[in-house]
Amino acid sequence: MAKRQYILSTIKQVFQKYGFLQLETPAMENLSTLTGKYGEEGDQLLFKVLNSGDYLKDVDEEKLKARDSKGITFDISEKGLKYDLTVPFARYVVMNRHEITFPFKRFQIQPVWRADRPQKGRYREFYQCDADVIGTDSLLCEAEIVLMIREVCKGLGIQDFSIKVNHRGILSGLAAIADAKGNETSLFVAIDKLDKIGDEKVKEELRTKGFSDKSIDRIFDILHFQGSNLNKLEMLNSKLEDTETGLKGVEDMKQIIELLSKFDLDAETIDFDIALARGLSYYTGTIFEVKINKVAIGSVSGGGRYDDLTGVFGLPGVSGVGFSFGVDRLYDAMEELKLFPEETDESTEVLIAHLDHETMLYGLKALKQLRREGVAAEIYPDTVKLKKQLDYANKKKIPFVIVIGSDEMKSGQLTFKNMKTGEQQQLSIEEILIQF
Amino acid sequence: MAKRQYILSTIKQVFQKYGFLQLETPAMENLSTLTGKYGEEGDQLLFKVLNSGDYLKDVDEEKLKARDSKGITFDISEKGLKYDLTVPFARYVVMNRHEITFPFKRFQIQPVWRADRPQKGRYREFYQCDADVIGTDSLLCEAEIVLMIREVCKGLGIQDFSIKVNHRGILSGLAAIADAKGNETSLFVAIDKLDKIGDEKVKEELRTKGFSDKSIDRIFDILHFQGSNLNKLEMLNSKLEDTETGLKGVEDMKQIIELLSKFDLDAETIDFDIALARGLSYYTGTIFEVKINKVAIGSVSGGGRYDDLTGVFGLPGVSGVGFSFGVDRLYDAMEELKLFPEETDESTEVLIAHLDHETMLYGLKALKQLRREGVAAEIYPDTVKLKKQLDYANKKKIPFVIVIGSDEMKSGQLTFKNMKTGEQQQLSIEEILIQF
Repeated sequence: MAKRQYILSTIKQVFQKYGFLQLETPAMENLSTLTGKYGEEGDQLLFKVLNSGDYLKDVDEEKLKARDSKGITFDISEKGLKYDLTVPFARYVVMNRHEITFPFKRFQIQPVWRADRPQKGRYREFYQCDADVIGTDSLLCEAEIVLMIREVCKGLGIQDFSIKVNHRGILSGLAAIADAKGNETSLFVAIDKLDKIGDEKVKEELRTKGFSDKSIDRIFDILHFQGSNLNKLEMLNSKLEDTETGLKGVEDMKQIIELLSKFDLDAETIDFDIALARGLSYYTGTIFEVKINKVAIGSVSGGGRYDDLTGVFGLPGVSGVGFSFGVDRLYDAMEELKLFPEETDESTEVLIAHLDHETMLYGLKALKQLRREGVAAEIYPDTVKLKKQLDYANKKKIPFVIVIGSDEMKSGQLTFKNMKTGEQQQLSIEEILIQF
Repeated sequence: MAKRQYILSTIKQVFQKYGFLQLETPAMENLSTLTGKYGEEGDQLLFKVLNSGDYLKDVDEEKLKARDSKGITFDISEKGLKYDLTVPFARYVVMNRHEITFPFKRFQIQPVWRADRPQKGRYREFYQCDADVIGTDSLLCEAEIVLMIREVCKGLGIQDFSIKVNHRGILSGLAAIADAKGNETSLFVAIDKLDKIGDEKVKEELRTKGFSDKSIDRIFDILHFQGSNLNKLEMLNSKLEDTETGLKGVEDMKQIIELLSKFDLDAETIDFDIALARGLSYYTGTIFEVKINKVAIGSVSGGGRYDDLTGVFGLPGVSGVGFSFGVDRLYDAMEELKLFPEETDESTEVLIAHLDHETMLYGLKALKQLRREGVAAEIYPDTVKLKKQLDYANKKKIPFVIVIGSDEMKSGQLTFKNMKTGEQQQLSIEEILIQF
């Protein structure tokens, strides 16, 4: 828990430094808000909350007789637990559009729920950390997302990571020159798997989906192009010259790289990956994905620009861009890389141990003074053997213990023990206070 | 949201300073863990989560035919949203008893859910902030709870509050001298209402419940006793001398007052209220309740000692004491008393405004430097009229704006505007940095 707090507070600090305000939305949303937003599989993974009271009263007789679980779900359940932070956020923006100041920069750090079979790296309840800017199409937002990802990773001690970036326009351009009209999704789904299944299987899949060998060659020529990001953009500029969306994608990527240069970051800061597609179909511009290298854990962050997130709730044409961190994956990666600091600032700094009721009472004075100075301190509440009190400190990873016996009480020189080194000194409370 | 964060972080800091560790438990618990713990009304207010898949498959034919909503609830729903933090915490302690270091000091700040009709001061989802120490019966814990409540209230700027304290033993003593054997709960429920309905109605209620006039007189003699806390204890010591639990209560109260004196707090720090009963029946020792005076809002904090919280989960005899803050009520009270600081440290400190694309690009350098110094800063992402940018700053309560036009770009002397006073100066970025 302390470790997760460490990740969350690092992320939160970065979000705030970039001018994002924290928002929380309720755990429960109307099911009508949630369904149809995550595909059929997503709908099945929604946790539905049973209506209160006599929920069966008005259920259709036939459906009940037929035990039509699917059919009566919406009759007996009006609310569901949120599946992600994005859709409830879109609902929030539409409902509060008259009070919100646009461009609206907000972040959310909250749990979401999915009725998935629990397995390593997948939990039924997990935290999402989202940051979005909506109401502007400025590419500065994209550049700042790259900066924020870097700052969070570095803040957590992660040195070796890749920020993959691509643009839906470029993917559309690819689709156009591959004659994929009406078949774009198949193309994106296929090339998104390149990493996992390799060239041959992707080509096979594309053939099955009706792509000609010529089209496939054209696409792979582009995907296999070797060169710097600027070279890639030049190449795409000429290959996609007949596709409007393709050129828009190239132009956006160029601008993002130019903006990053103003922050002293060179063009290779991002890993421009033409094969990066990401599943969610609401992205319309840039797309991001962050991987920690040398760790066998999926992407720890991802996002992109969408031109119409709020359209489904009746507010079309609001452009936005957002990204999120997968806290549980960051956690696993940091454990694997041993990046958590040994002590977090969440735990007690000093335990006061004592030998009997009288020395305990005497210790309260020291306790009061420590806390007055803002030192997280506690006194063992019962009169038990010293060993048990020291064990308690060790298990709680409390770095210092003050021991008070009758000698200490008489002299005012308390035993101040460093639990890591075992070293101990006789110090007055004033001398101890200076240590913190 | 920023205001709520302000309350939560104040509370969290105090909890940590007193050696409590943060814990989070899942939103969903098995319904079998939750039901039967909050009385019949509580069971009805539990949000139940529908099982995944074909949940109707194995439901009893008869129950389905009879539309027996109540009867089939547990067949189609295995999980529920947590109703409070205490019961899931007890479940957690029992499940993890071999890993936990006792005495276990933990706090939790998480939402809970109740299927209540929403109304002022009552929400379906609301935060609870609990702190408990379990595995010790030391009264030092009680004294420290009083200290923590004081520190939180003062930290939030609340000056005029009362920490009401009583002891179940004293209530049991009262019941004994009122011949209330088997009728204790009626007595506690009745006197708990004294504040709201007054003497006469309470007496009437007691008569209806079978209490004799003599018993009622005895009780009211005690309840109406005027005097200092120490006088009250003396009086109770003699009145309750034949009741073992009563004397234990008096003795505990004396010790708590003595411990508080070690922290330089006099006996009147607490408002010893013999009529304080609190509803929850699992309290067995001290009980607490905190009211903010001159504000028409219920108690903002409460708690008590329980001797057997985990018994229901198979771990009997673990004594503990805990208390919690009602964040939403604290929020309402602070709004009413106008105690929120005008600026919280959650929002952006500087906005960089600009007049065109070129000055925007120039501003990125200043942005970078501000953030490097840890200043929360943002730049307006689009090229729009200055007025719109200043409006944005005002609505977001950003205290300072740096304006960059072509003159500023040439001279390097940026316009630094204080949004509260309207005052503005020409300063270099280095001179601006010193302001933070």
